[in-house]
Amino acid sequence: MFQLNDNYLKLPGSYLFSTIGKKVREYQAAHPDQKVISLGIGDVTQPLAPVIIDALHRAVDEMGHRETFHGYAPDLGYEFLRTTIAKHDFQARGADISADEIFISDGAKCDCSNIQEIFSQDNTIAVCDPVYPVYVDSNVMAGRTGTYDPQSGVWSDVIYMPCTMDNDFVPELPKKTPDLIYLCYPNNPTGSTLTKDQLQVWVDYANRVGAVILFDAAYEAYISEENVPHTIYECEGARTCAIEMRSFSKNAGFTGVRLGFTVIPKDIQRDGVALHALWARRHGTKYNGAPYIIQRAGEAVYSPEGKEQLTKQVAYYMNNAAVIKEGLCKAGYRVSGGVNAPYIWMKTPDGMTSWQFFDELLNKANVVGTPGSGFGPSGEGYFRLTAFGTYESTLEAVRRIQRL
Amino acid sequence: MFQLNDNYLKLPGSYLFSTIGKKVREYQAAHPDQKVISLGIGDVTQPLAPVIIDALHRAVDEMGHRETFHGYAPDLGYEFLRTTIAKHDFQARGADISADEIFISDGAKCDCSNIQEIFSQDNTIAVCDPVYPVYVDSNVMAGRTGTYDPQSGVWSDVIYMPCTMDNDFVPELPKKTPDLIYLCYPNNPTGSTLTKDQLQVWVDYANRVGAVILFDAAYEAYISEENVPHTIYECEGARTCAIEMRSFSKNAGFTGVRLGFTVIPKDIQRDGVALHALWARRHGTKYNGAPYIIQRAGEAVYSPEGKEQLTKQVAYYMNNAAVIKEGLCKAGYRVSGGVNAPYIWMKTPDGMTSWQFFDELLNKANVVGTPGSGFGPSGEGYFRLTAFGTYESTLEAVRRIQRL
Repeated sequence: MFQLNDNYLKLPGSYLFSTIGKKVREYQAAHPDQKVISLGIGDVTQPLAPVIIDALHRAVDEMGHRETFHGYAPDLGYEFLRTTIAKHDFQARGADISADEIFISDGAKCDCSNIQEIFSQDNTIAVCDPVYPVYVDSNVMAGRTGTYDPQSGVWSDVIYMPCTMDNDFVPELPKKTPDLIYLCYPNNPTGSTLTKDQLQVWVDYANRVGAVILFDAAYEAYISEENVPHTIYECEGARTCAIEMRSFSKNAGFTGVRLGFTVIPKDIQRDGVALHALWARRHGTKYNGAPYIIQRAGEAVYSPEGKEQLTKQVAYYMNNAAVIKEGLCKAGYRVSGGVNAPYIWMKTPDGMTSWQFFDELLNKANVVGTPGSGFGPSGEGYFRLTAFGTYESTLEAVRRIQRL
Repeated sequence: MFQLNDNYLKLPGSYLFSTIGKKVREYQAAHPDQKVISLGIGDVTQPLAPVIIDALHRAVDEMGHRETFHGYAPDLGYEFLRTTIAKHDFQARGADISADEIFISDGAKCDCSNIQEIFSQDNTIAVCDPVYPVYVDSNVMAGRTGTYDPQSGVWSDVIYMPCTMDNDFVPELPKKTPDLIYLCYPNNPTGSTLTKDQLQVWVDYANRVGAVILFDAAYEAYISEENVPHTIYECEGARTCAIEMRSFSKNAGFTGVRLGFTVIPKDIQRDGVALHALWARRHGTKYNGAPYIIQRAGEAVYSPEGKEQLTKQVAYYMNNAAVIKEGLCKAGYRVSGGVNAPYIWMKTPDGMTSWQFFDELLNKANVVGTPGSGFGPSGEGYFRLTAFGTYESTLEAVRRIQRL
């Protein structure tokens, strides 16, 4: 008689963004005349850049003729895209990564959640707190996290590394030694970053204790300051301890197009077996490649026109971030992020909980954000706003918050 | 110190199609003048139908304007596609499946390999032998298959159900009771099918013993005979025991486009928990939806023009199948399949092993097929040819085999 994967049943019921959606729908139903502005979910709003649209049309035409039709893609992705990525994202920054260490996928969310599969069931994970929920949830499903305490929101076998205003959102090295360390910089949800020196501390630590860093660099395109590494492979020694995951969702607006990649240097090994070989086997067995037309769109991102058009798109969102940050500061809020990331992370006023402030903002300003407590225990008392709206709606949202 | 998922290390080293590729490359290098024809890998060769190309172009244009841009897709897939599928593939055949029981994905391979995740680690799987390797391999990776015997090619904890000419490729109910039963009809690799009555036996059995049938119907479009079910939900009682997986790869040539779906009726439950809820949670946590433009292409498959154009495409391949089948029969081979499936399954002549015949065919006829033993122990002594080549190359390949 079949049985369920019990680990799934341990997951707390309601997912953050479903609860937000429900509250917004209820408010709208009760107040049909009010125009609610969402600065909540991290989805982009600008259309695909012309260079991407052109690349897609060209690739679609290729698929319509026998001579240029493309069937199954290579498991690891087309050479044309992997070579382009290796050159622009890594070699151009002095990072020693080759095309055959890059695995093309349909997005960073899949890679972030699947990567834990190639590690032992007994490995212990460490995560920043607050954190993007997918890292923990995918490990819950795999049975790696112990038991959940609904009061504290804490899993017994997960190492949490608090990131709050008190430590300027820079996690301390954990007291208990982890096997797998999830780091996301620029950070979702706090919008913070690490300098190269700060990240080097983590690389050295991982190499020393034999841990692997799972480095989520989905927001790399938003880095504006010097001395912030664009890839973990700018750090000395990262080739023996770090896996990096990247997305096209936020730098090129691919949230509905789906493309990402994971870098696994061949130097990360245990007992003579390379993690690269395990991930290659997973790709070959459980995946059938990203669509040809979308890999061509990915290639266009790196063309001179692509870079020009997408720099403007990122600047558009970062202007929104500046509008939010300055507006909230003027209104007396304590705000961080928004400089190297499209996320603004604010302290809730008057000791309100994250959800109390959510309700206040929804009911009194008709603005939707994301309660910080949804990202982990140390997110309580914080609130996230995103820069992915239109300029007009962002401006209006900030005015409304200022009027509160 | 991080450790590997040891289950990956249990997988036998060389993958079937890599070994084939290596042998072909070596032969070509030694005989650069010979033109090798491949009827090996199951990839399509015809370009996308005009109706699909048009739908893709239209959707790409939508992505280029703010008003019609689409970001993150709904986790389960767009309503327009799920409703269309429910109507055409199920309700039109009297199968009681609703749109919200359909989960859109990027292909049947991913779904076939991921579906095991929602079941207990202790569940025992049963597979036909020979079988599409992904079912077993994904369970090896999850640690569900015990130990491997390289001599026999058998995993200690897997229930094998032999399908050979002796039982007309119809598996018998297993002596040991499985929890999960993988069935693929029309079958890859044998090209055989089950009648509705034969499939009903399995549905009744699964309901009786509390097993779940994982039904891979990727080749449904190739069914040409009456009384062969197009979906398992044509059988009475399937809603309480069967999950069906579908692909757009073979009916619409989407091998390089990537689209598929899985049907999980809400009636499959254990201890009051629906498998539907677990799979929904998996989709929400580990997946970010199939691309909007590709879901629009999938919708076009079901339009009147789409049906007309794709019926012709399937007929093209099935004409190849007939050419192969008749040609081999005339040459005195014992051949099955090719009537309701794009695969021809032949007995090797003169007691040759599958790989001996592979080498003979490659060296003497310059034709590439797939050794049956690559699909499991009971595939030894068989050989698979596919109908996915061009008509011209198929005809030439058959002539060469006849001249052997």
